Amino acid sequence: MLDNQRLDSSKGYTVIERTEAPIAPQKSIWVRLIGQPLRSIDLPHQTVGKLVGLAVFASDALSSTAYATQEILIILAAAGTMALGYVFPIAIAITALLVIVTVSYEQTIHAYPGGGGAYIVARDNLGELPAQTAGAALLTDYVLTVAVSVSSGVAQIASAFPDLFPYRVPLAVALVAVVMLINLRGVKESGATFALPTYFFIVMMFATVGVGLFRALSGTLGTVSNPPHAVLETGLGVVTPFLLLHAFSSGTAALTGIEAISNGITAFREPRSRNAGITLIWMAAILATLFLAISFLSRVMAAVPSEEETVISQLARTVFNGQGPLYLGLIAATTLILVLAANTSFADFPRLAALHAGDGFLPRQLTLRGSRLVYSYGIVALALVASLLIIAFNASVTALIPLYAIGVFLSFTLSQVGMARRWWKAGHLSPGQEVNEPGSVLRYQPGWQVKMVINAFGAFCTAVVVIVFAVTKFRDGAWIVIFLTPTLVFIFFRIHAHYKRLAKQLSLENYQPRVPSFRHRVILPIGGVHQGTLEALHYARMLSHDLTAVHVSVEPTETERIKDKWATWGEGIRLVVLDSPYRVMYEPLLAYIEEVASRRQQNERITIVVPQFVPKHWWHNLLHMQTATFLRFALLFKKNIVVTDVPYQVE
Amino acid sequence: MLDNQRLDSSKGYTVIERTEAPIAPQKSIWVRLIGQPLRSIDLPHQTVGKLVGLAVFASDALSSTAYATQEILIILAAAGTMALGYVFPIAIAITALLVIVTVSYEQTIHAYPGGGGAYIVARDNLGELPAQTAGAALLTDYVLTVAVSVSSGVAQIASAFPDLFPYRVPLAVALVAVVMLINLRGVKESGATFALPTYFFIVMMFATVGVGLFRALSGTLGTVSNPPHAVLETGLGVVTPFLLLHAFSSGTAALTGIEAISNGITAFREPRSRNAGITLIWMAAILATLFLAISFLSRVMAAVPSEEETVISQLARTVFNGQGPLYLGLIAATTLILVLAANTSFADFPRLAALHAGDGFLPRQLTLRGSRLVYSYGIVALALVASLLIIAFNASVTALIPLYAIGVFLSFTLSQVGMARRWWKAGHLSPGQEVNEPGSVLRYQPGWQVKMVINAFGAFCTAVVVIVFAVTKFRDGAWIVIFLTPTLVFIFFRIHAHYKRLAKQLSLENYQPRVPSFRHRVILPIGGVHQGTLEALHYARMLSHDLTAVHVSVEPTETERIKDKWATWGEGIRLVVLDSPYRVMYEPLLAYIEEVASRRQQNERITIVVPQFVPKHWWHNLLHMQTATFLRFALLFKKNIVVTDVPYQVE
Repeated sequence: MLDNQRLDSSKGYTVIERTEAPIAPQKSIWVRLIGQPLRSIDLPHQTVGKLVGLAVFASDALSSTAYATQEILIILAAAGTMALGYVFPIAIAITALLVIVTVSYEQTIHAYPGGGGAYIVARDNLGELPAQTAGAALLTDYVLTVAVSVSSGVAQIASAFPDLFPYRVPLAVALVAVVMLINLRGVKESGATFALPTYFFIVMMFATVGVGLFRALSGTLGTVSNPPHAVLETGLGVVTPFLLLHAFSSGTAALTGIEAISNGITAFREPRSRNAGITLIWMAAILATLFLAISFLSRVMAAVPSEEETVISQLARTVFNGQGPLYLGLIAATTLILVLAANTSFADFPRLAALHAGDGFLPRQLTLRGSRLVYSYGIVALALVASLLIIAFNASVTALIPLYAIGVFLSFTLSQVGMARRWWKAGHLSPGQEVNEPGSVLRYQPGWQVKMVINAFGAFCTAVVVIVFAVTKFRDGAWIVIFLTPTLVFIFFRIHAHYKRLAKQLSLENYQPRVPSFRHRVILPIGGVHQGTLEALHYARMLSHDLTAVHVSVEPTETERIKDKWATWGEGIRLVVLDSPYRVMYEPLLAYIEEVASRRQQNERITIVVPQFVPKHWWHNLLHMQTATFLRFALLFKKNIVVTDVPYQVE
Repeated sequence: MLDNQRLDSSKGYTVIERTEAPIAPQKSIWVRLIGQPLRSIDLPHQTVGKLVGLAVFASDALSSTAYATQEILIILAAAGTMALGYVFPIAIAITALLVIVTVSYEQTIHAYPGGGGAYIVARDNLGELPAQTAGAALLTDYVLTVAVSVSSGVAQIASAFPDLFPYRVPLAVALVAVVMLINLRGVKESGATFALPTYFFIVMMFATVGVGLFRALSGTLGTVSNPPHAVLETGLGVVTPFLLLHAFSSGTAALTGIEAISNGITAFREPRSRNAGITLIWMAAILATLFLAISFLSRVMAAVPSEEETVISQLARTVFNGQGPLYLGLIAATTLILVLAANTSFADFPRLAALHAGDGFLPRQLTLRGSRLVYSYGIVALALVASLLIIAFNASVTALIPLYAIGVFLSFTLSQVGMARRWWKAGHLSPGQEVNEPGSVLRYQPGWQVKMVINAFGAFCTAVVVIVFAVTKFRDGAWIVIFLTPTLVFIFFRIHAHYKRLAKQLSLENYQPRVPSFRHRVILPIGGVHQGTLEALHYARMLSHDLTAVHVSVEPTETERIKDKWATWGEGIRLVVLDSPYRVMYEPLLAYIEEVASRRQQNERITIVVPQFVPKHWWHNLLHMQTATFLRFALLFKKNIVVTDVPYQVE
């Protein structure tokens, strides 16, 4: 290690830089699990085209077709079987919303070629509070994406293999653990990994709805045979506007993931924005087609809203007449894309958390890349919280859905309000003028009024959805998110305030260097006289000549023995004996230290040297008084007092 | 504090002894709860006569009459109602055993006027292994005494007020907490505190069985009206020898507590042994009378074995024709004496644990008297374990009984074997010869053969009980104790071995004082350059002139900034930059420290000075890397390396 060092004295002091034979993390079972460490220079910088880009970014959005229709049906079921007919009109309304959001986001992609996630757009155009709100909402939703997608994936498996139904929770938690490990390994996001399952899903799904639509139009599509148990009908009986809005809210889960491309524009090949924009439109078109077709077919075949068998499973076995290879193929494809959707959150959540942390709104540790170049803290945190959610909600998609999507729509709204504001600012620049913002370059654009109206309309629509959602699903669980989001924002700002205060206090501006200390008092508390004590005595003598040993006397006979031993071994050092008739150990010692401290001179330093046993096994610590640890905590808040443990290794 | 200090230089060094204005523990809610601290010289030294002595020591033994009969009935119930008739013959057998044990212990009291608990007798006469076994068995049984007595006390209350039946567990745990607090206060064991409830119980109980026997003999005692639900009869149908032995085992719980006087001889007025011996015989006589009478009456009135209503409650309301004041008086007296029995364990357990700890078989902390002069650690430990037992066994006396008493009988056996061995040794001394043993004085006594036979016969009988108990109750729960006792003994010896090894290693015999250190290298790891760093830098410069700052470089731009700042603020101190391409923080630093350590000279010392933030609120620590803490743990096991945190208080 010493061979390759570079000395540099040009700075007025000696710098020794060591660059070779770098130290890697130690090999362990952990390394075997998550793979060899990677160097910082290995950070990948590959870009993708539209076809691969679609595969990489569409899994989250497309996977929601696996549960959106079903969740609409489950709400409608409260008004009886006849109410299920409203599923298709509701699906059309949601598709209209999808079109509005897509057009709005298309504009964002062109305005933010460097990546236009809601957090960045809100931060640049609206300020810190909206940005933190958008971020908190998105972080919450990424957690829910993992919980919902994995739960739905397990529900697909349980539809094909009903014996697994009782094991949904352990299965789902195990899946989350597997996805976490894969992400801790830091898989190189090669296109192929994503392209295969995504296109497999698209092909299988189009084949299924294609055959289904053909058979429906030709009148040969029957209804679901051996239908599963439907969810309990509460017998509301009448279709109220509230019920329809409620069902609509559940269905908006179909739109989650649509924002993925706007976050990841930099991953596209040049011309970036154009490629990303076209991919977005493709994705929206595929999503709309599949969602509408599934919703339509669900009525034709009289699908039953059930937690035992998913609508996708009912669809596939009705279209393909039973559980043959094509049925299993679709179930496998659906499960795969759902897991892939969860995987997307494992990339997005840590990246967004690192953005927050970099701005000082979350613990700084989240900005650290682990040995595999991924944000390990964020990945583990996401897996933990998602697993807890799955356990708490019993891996039920229907139970989780009321918490889901509201965060996404809140961030949609904030991002589009930000875009509208941006167009307004851009419209008031003189042509040719450019303003550099942190995330993008602002310049005048002709026709900015139209673009502003489009984003404002998008913002209006999604804001309405947020309100509808909050009202209709409040009691089902949306209240959790409604209270959680401001709480998170509050915590973010408290963290920010802490970092700001700290930076100010540590700042070296206007810092007056201290006068060098010229007096150093050392105090050595002793409980007995043995090799450990003498070890500490030798160390203490090296620190200063002003040394005092202190003993707290609880038992007079013991104290006499210590005084005798000290006469032999104490090397003439002064011993102070503090009488403690109440048998307390620390209070007299602390009082003595305070007294010494109160009489010290300007810039005098006090060091407490404490002998500390280091037993061979940690549990041996239970057999000893933890004097050193206790004193360190007790004196932590005293200025200019340092506690030094001198370890004495036993065995 | 400084006013009253005494200087003493006669020892070859200065001793300053401070005796006045001693520091008491701080006032707090805790002090208000457990009372003002007491000084060591306040340890009480009062002695009691026979009447008060009976009250102080009999509560544990007498209280077992509250459940012993009932537990015999519950076992017999398995063979049907007719089998309940065996309760009286079994009670007679248990009384015979009581006589044997009493005679045997009477001899111990005279041989050990300084206190002859099983631990001391076994240690003096049989060695460490039997002593630790007796101690482990007794400690286990003290815990069970608390659990059983408090559970039975709550059962008495619930018999009188059936509405409280569902709250038995919280009631019992609350009672344990109250008794714990009373003991932490360190109640002066004044005779009156004990005399009142004990004699109240004795009077009430004799009144009840007296009236009961009179009515029974005059034929006016009816049977229990509105009997409670009997415990489920398993319908075994036949009375087997196994069943009778099983019932006998349950009844032996009546003998628990009989050993109390032999532990506490020193509390008696002179002539100690005589007074204690007579008290023991009184106690045994009262216990035998009450137990036989209750068992007899239980059959006459056809008491039902039940967990809903205790036999005592059934007896009282049958004898007194309903739940009048006399009924309530007996229930209150029984509950009180049961709580008092639990209280006895709170005195005995910590005292025995302190004996073990003093001999180095339990953590030394158990020998420390708290601010109220009681063994606080032992009291809290007992309360915790007893509460856990109550919760685990649902406050059911019947469920706890199979664990109980086996430990007591094991310690009876060991103590009496020890006594027999002692007579044998004493018999082989020449008359007039005296041998000092740690716990007593051994001298020749005429007629030692008779005494030896009496103790040996007692040991034989109690050993048989242990075996009967272990076999008949193995499956009911005795297996727990059978496995626990050797495990505890094993742990005790492991602790002992640790302390012995440690003492040997720390011993100053043959200790060669170190050559004083003449070189002191100081290493200062820095993560940034700010006021906290400079604070640590100033401290480090005071320790030694051989100082090196070290920075682990994870990000090159950050490192450049640090180098620039160091040029301004580093006071010319050498800076070593360790490149870490894998972004690990500690490994390169530890490797550097190891390298420096490997090249050091004889007796050279290395100190690592680490700047440490001390935030205002503990949870702020979550927002910072815990470098100082981590380094301390990582370097704890390295010889001659000391880690010093220099705290930097924020705000």
